[in-house]
Amino acid sequence: MLNFELYNPTRLLYGEGQIGEIKNYIPANAKVLIAYGGGSIFKNGVYDQVKEALQGFDVVEFGGIEPNPRFETVVKAVDIIKAEGVDFILGVGGGSVIDGVKFISAAVYFEGDPIAIVQKKMRVDWKAMPYGAILTLPATGSEMNCGAVVTIEKTKEKLSFEGESLYPVFSVCDPKVIASLPERQIANGLADSFVHVLEQYLTFPQNAPLQDRFAEGILSTVIEVSKPILEDPTNYDAANNYMWCCTMALNGLISKGVKVDWVTHAIGHELTALYGIDHGRTLAIIGPNLYRVMFETKKEKLAQLGRRVFNIQGDNDDVVAKEAIEAMVEFFHSLGIQTKISDYTEDFEKASAFIADRFAERGWVAMGEKHNITVDKVKEIVELSF
Amino acid sequence: MLNFELYNPTRLLYGEGQIGEIKNYIPANAKVLIAYGGGSIFKNGVYDQVKEALQGFDVVEFGGIEPNPRFETVVKAVDIIKAEGVDFILGVGGGSVIDGVKFISAAVYFEGDPIAIVQKKMRVDWKAMPYGAILTLPATGSEMNCGAVVTIEKTKEKLSFEGESLYPVFSVCDPKVIASLPERQIANGLADSFVHVLEQYLTFPQNAPLQDRFAEGILSTVIEVSKPILEDPTNYDAANNYMWCCTMALNGLISKGVKVDWVTHAIGHELTALYGIDHGRTLAIIGPNLYRVMFETKKEKLAQLGRRVFNIQGDNDDVVAKEAIEAMVEFFHSLGIQTKISDYTEDFEKASAFIADRFAERGWVAMGEKHNITVDKVKEIVELSF
Repeated sequence: MLNFELYNPTRLLYGEGQIGEIKNYIPANAKVLIAYGGGSIFKNGVYDQVKEALQGFDVVEFGGIEPNPRFETVVKAVDIIKAEGVDFILGVGGGSVIDGVKFISAAVYFEGDPIAIVQKKMRVDWKAMPYGAILTLPATGSEMNCGAVVTIEKTKEKLSFEGESLYPVFSVCDPKVIASLPERQIANGLADSFVHVLEQYLTFPQNAPLQDRFAEGILSTVIEVSKPILEDPTNYDAANNYMWCCTMALNGLISKGVKVDWVTHAIGHELTALYGIDHGRTLAIIGPNLYRVMFETKKEKLAQLGRRVFNIQGDNDDVVAKEAIEAMVEFFHSLGIQTKISDYTEDFEKASAFIADRFAERGWVAMGEKHNITVDKVKEIVELSF
Repeated sequence: MLNFELYNPTRLLYGEGQIGEIKNYIPANAKVLIAYGGGSIFKNGVYDQVKEALQGFDVVEFGGIEPNPRFETVVKAVDIIKAEGVDFILGVGGGSVIDGVKFISAAVYFEGDPIAIVQKKMRVDWKAMPYGAILTLPATGSEMNCGAVVTIEKTKEKLSFEGESLYPVFSVCDPKVIASLPERQIANGLADSFVHVLEQYLTFPQNAPLQDRFAEGILSTVIEVSKPILEDPTNYDAANNYMWCCTMALNGLISKGVKVDWVTHAIGHELTALYGIDHGRTLAIIGPNLYRVMFETKKEKLAQLGRRVFNIQGDNDDVVAKEAIEAMVEFFHSLGIQTKISDYTEDFEKASAFIADRFAERGWVAMGEKHNITVDKVKEIVELSF
């Protein structure tokens, strides 16, 4: 286990009916920008609850933040904030809206063209505008971390940035919102949170048994909860645990003191940028093939995953490790998620060279927890995913 | 799983050599009160590291905070702070020092006789003086929570208080400090952290599978690490995981959304106040007997503990649950900890009536996660512990 710093000041307001609490955590007399997406909050009752909770506050609205939020969209909010004298942002939506709000929050006080925040994957260490979040779609963990991913439409680049000033002041997680989600989005969230854990856990033994057990606990719980929540999204008990797993999968805890991977995400982001494949699905496509290609690096943890999470018996690490990958693919299929690029597009063959070239241009030539995922390996992973 | 609020703004600086970082988190020009205990920090090199890290700060010292810190001792620091114009407190020591600092921090701006903070088990919701901690003895988890326990010597009462303003601004956990600890203190810390988890976990099934798995992960890791760290406290890998488990056992995470017990602590505190038995040891004495007396309430979770943590096989819940209690006792014995009051004092017989009367006076007549631990049950638990 390496040295680490654990700091996460976000106040998580968790459970049914918590939206009403937000007024206690927004500065009195603040002018609030409510940022949201395509309008599902008008259908599921969340917008009404938010307006009710914000009675007495001066409010401006900014809608239309799309899935995989675009720089070109969210940058417009910065002008509104400046023109209207907004003091506080309230993001109401899924990870895309919250990531978009993180960009807005970072950009308000940024000097220069804010495209640099995304393009240069900046570490946001300057003062950002405080914001809170009301999560309507559990998946990304954005509600309790300080990172975000924004797409530059012009160059079709989906890039991440982060910084300590980007933690939400508060986030509301009310599992009731899950009842109105389409099955497809729930499946995406399950796959997303599952692979978030794998990116931090599926590396090599690092003398971090507690982080391992926390990670395995999230994975086991995601698997356990997946069938009941897909069968009945109004199952509050299942919704509750699903939402909680999504937050814990990516709030920084399980990565403390260990080297992490995140290359499944790096490749997955390109598949979204290229073909518009849902984020969670790109992870289910790439993850298993990355573990196949990087088998020698990861086989000890793959075997541990097989034994502890998938209950695979056997003394031979290599065999258990290989079976763990197959069990993982089966899990994704059980969510109704296809795991080949060709399941989503006929134009799949261009992906490998395109992504490999792009990574080479960016200097991403030695990635992963052991810096041994080269551009050639990336190509191999993508081709194995065709 | 119940609604909950998760908020923990403490910055944990974790690992070897982190003491030097504290200067970045103490306000510039602050006058700092260094609070410590009996002077072990002068022998293990921590004092020198702290003085080095605080170069450039104006410093006052306050030593002599004893194990089970006394109100009568720590209240003296409040006058020093006011007389010297101190702005920031730095607690350097184990849980007792940090708990003492929490009292001081709460008392500085308290109006009235600060004994009330302890006596009335107050919720500290007023502004407290900011403080940081440098942990020298892993056990209590005080370095990352907002609760404290202070003893009133005059009435021999050991009472807890808490409040959101009592989170440390930062805490340094450097596992190197463990190398110089006596075996007895390491054993106490292992027992303490183990029972901290049990107080939050060993209740009844509450549809909180993730909290359960996190709790079981801490318990399993404490067991795993206990032998190597007791055999060789200079084993940095073992020290690292031991210290990390102690923090995670009581930083609030595993109790989110579940009803908790804490009666083992309530009774254990009385044994410390009465006989001076080390805190961790009182928990090892009382815990198993509380689980025996409250068996019907707790047997489902006891069986889960048996299967998942102690690897006890068998289909019969009652049998596995009973074996789990015995396995727990064996674990305490493996730490060199005796589990009967009579192992510590010949004057044990007075304890049951004394403690039961005291709880009755305080109105503590329906305790535990199901409010079914009556004064009679308390008496039975203590007598079973003779």
